[in-house]
Amino acid sequence: MSIIVQKYGGTSVATIDKIKSVAKLLIKRKESGNNMVAVVSAMGKTTDKLISMANEISKDPSKRELDMLISTGEQVTSSLLAMTLKEMGHNSIALTGFQAGIMTGNQHTKAPILDIDIEKVKKYLSQGKIVIVAGFQGIDEYGDITTLGRGGSDTTAVALAAKLNCPCEIYTDVKGIYSTDPGIYPDAKKLDYISYEEMMEMASLGAKVIETRAVEMGRKYNVPIYIALNNGECLGTYIKEFDESMETKVITGLTANDDDLMVTINNVPYNMKHIYSIFDKLSSMDINIDMISQTAPVNGHVNISFTAPKDNRYLIDRLIDELKLTMNEIKVDIQEDITKISVVGLGMRTQSGVAARIFKIFADNNIEFKQVTTSEIRISYTINTKDKKKAISGIAKEFNL
Amino acid sequence: MSIIVQKYGGTSVATIDKIKSVAKLLIKRKESGNNMVAVVSAMGKTTDKLISMANEISKDPSKRELDMLISTGEQVTSSLLAMTLKEMGHNSIALTGFQAGIMTGNQHTKAPILDIDIEKVKKYLSQGKIVIVAGFQGIDEYGDITTLGRGGSDTTAVALAAKLNCPCEIYTDVKGIYSTDPGIYPDAKKLDYISYEEMMEMASLGAKVIETRAVEMGRKYNVPIYIALNNGECLGTYIKEFDESMETKVITGLTANDDDLMVTINNVPYNMKHIYSIFDKLSSMDINIDMISQTAPVNGHVNISFTAPKDNRYLIDRLIDELKLTMNEIKVDIQEDITKISVVGLGMRTQSGVAARIFKIFADNNIEFKQVTTSEIRISYTINTKDKKKAISGIAKEFNL
Repeated sequence: MSIIVQKYGGTSVATIDKIKSVAKLLIKRKESGNNMVAVVSAMGKTTDKLISMANEISKDPSKRELDMLISTGEQVTSSLLAMTLKEMGHNSIALTGFQAGIMTGNQHTKAPILDIDIEKVKKYLSQGKIVIVAGFQGIDEYGDITTLGRGGSDTTAVALAAKLNCPCEIYTDVKGIYSTDPGIYPDAKKLDYISYEEMMEMASLGAKVIETRAVEMGRKYNVPIYIALNNGECLGTYIKEFDESMETKVITGLTANDDDLMVTINNVPYNMKHIYSIFDKLSSMDINIDMISQTAPVNGHVNISFTAPKDNRYLIDRLIDELKLTMNEIKVDIQEDITKISVVGLGMRTQSGVAARIFKIFADNNIEFKQVTTSEIRISYTINTKDKKKAISGIAKEFNL
Repeated sequence: MSIIVQKYGGTSVATIDKIKSVAKLLIKRKESGNNMVAVVSAMGKTTDKLISMANEISKDPSKRELDMLISTGEQVTSSLLAMTLKEMGHNSIALTGFQAGIMTGNQHTKAPILDIDIEKVKKYLSQGKIVIVAGFQGIDEYGDITTLGRGGSDTTAVALAAKLNCPCEIYTDVKGIYSTDPGIYPDAKKLDYISYEEMMEMASLGAKVIETRAVEMGRKYNVPIYIALNNGECLGTYIKEFDESMETKVITGLTANDDDLMVTINNVPYNMKHIYSIFDKLSSMDINIDMISQTAPVNGHVNISFTAPKDNRYLIDRLIDELKLTMNEIKVDIQEDITKISVVGLGMRTQSGVAARIFKIFADNNIEFKQVTTSEIRISYTINTKDKKKAISGIAKEFNL
């Protein structure tokens, strides 16, 4: 009998009624001859509520205890879903991360899955049970509860599917993966297929539909991933290895991300000790910096810019205070109203000139860009947020997204 | 260094501010030279809220899943308290039931503690950590999460104290144990001491300050228990083995319990098969019956009365429907407005005449009673709820409570 792992996100399980709908979907698939595993997220805004309680206690609460706190969200959903299935007359069992054998590293709040002891899940499946697993969590070598980071339930689902050697279906509140955000560009097309590689670039750039690590794991273990609306009524998007059945486009997707701010540190003394100390502190404070640029030295000083998540703002303020102790000549400018626009496509490997076509769009539309970075299949630009819509429409039209 | 186990109930940890107050109390005791373990309940009405979610799904939800659901309440509190202690600069660690080594039977929603693997708690104490344990929960031989039943956090605390060979302090929202409910009889006196035995009778009869099993365990392992207000500012009540320092009173306490209803099944055919079938069904439906009485047979029929918890009402209705299938002549009367009054005292062992003195009070005050049961140190009466206040005042005055 075939096995299917499904994952239901927070909005799909936000109320008891929605949990009942999920139960019905699981029963339907079970009755058509599949062994079912469902991974669930916390209900609606539960995780945010728990985090805000922790923040009443501390701006930077103990990560071990934070994991113990927020992991309860998924535990609640999984027990309610199994309860619902039993009430509907179907055998089911809910498992926390540790009960499902999900072993992780001890990097609290962003622990990687190291392995899954899958025997318990297999045993329950062989008993005909619908197995519900609390997503987003695991247990480390000390027996402490860990969480996998935001969106970690996707990773739980794909990891289970890898271990069970079966496909993974991710149900969410969007119809699938779009070439760009339909909220910004209404003519955006839903993709029927996307390669793991392209999806990884898009996920990490803010497509927000599926977590990057989940796609990475899917690629590593060749797990077919399907993303669709949680009512299962319209065709979603398949994420899989690129093959000949998939049309090669220059650009598959276009993403915009408003979550970062841009820090510019002007007048930094141009010597390696000083420049190194900036990036060393950024790393030790766990600030996740992204695009970095540096001007050529003028009068023995350079300007350094980087982007970082807006919710790291208090850490950045602390960093600046510390830097000023040893470099009192620096002047810092923090810009919050920036957007990172990225284009992604396997076709960029073989077709050049994408950057030039985009620079022309920017010039024609009077859009100023602050930074550019490139990878093999991606180009990213930092622009002012006010120009976002103009940039997206221009690029989407040019590349027929 | 001495160890103290403290327990803080739901009202003591109902808000983040209250959790901060608890943290300060723990730090104070730690700094005066004690190793501290704190057992916590769920915040405020959290458990009720979780149960009502389960009841949206089912009137009788799967107990295994219910345990998994409601155990999250204590997990949340314990992580928040440890987080607070760390924020205040004190080393601390939060443990769920399974992490604290609390092994239980598999009777979900009312599992007994079988043993505690105390090594982990001892190790953390030896590292100078304030150890916070999620009360009310454990893990069974299958690795499933269990709960100990309402008030189970008291049992967790006393069991830990027994294993650590140390005293147990239970902090709550009342000043200690009263001879009777001061809400009904304002002149009731707070007791400085009460014996385990008397407290067990009082707890099971609805004194609601501490759970019976906790007192039973305290008695078995000779754990001194102290019950007091959570601000620690006024003297509470010690529960310990009876000794000469404690004055022998005829009656130590008087309790009133409105949680039961009384079922009278009239016109039951007087043969053992029928009577047995009633009690067999009650037992298989897990209805917790208490006071039982039966009239002498008249014309080959008897009337049987028993009390049971009001929240078993839907089970009782189902029972009656089933009984009518085989005994269509029965007539059933269910009375919800009854109160069980009980007097408890070690002195009753040696002094007789307590029942007679109470019957006189009832007669003088025109109080009708429906049932009487006695044990070595307790007498209980079922009366109409409307007579409760009159009965309590009368008895309290007569025995100087």
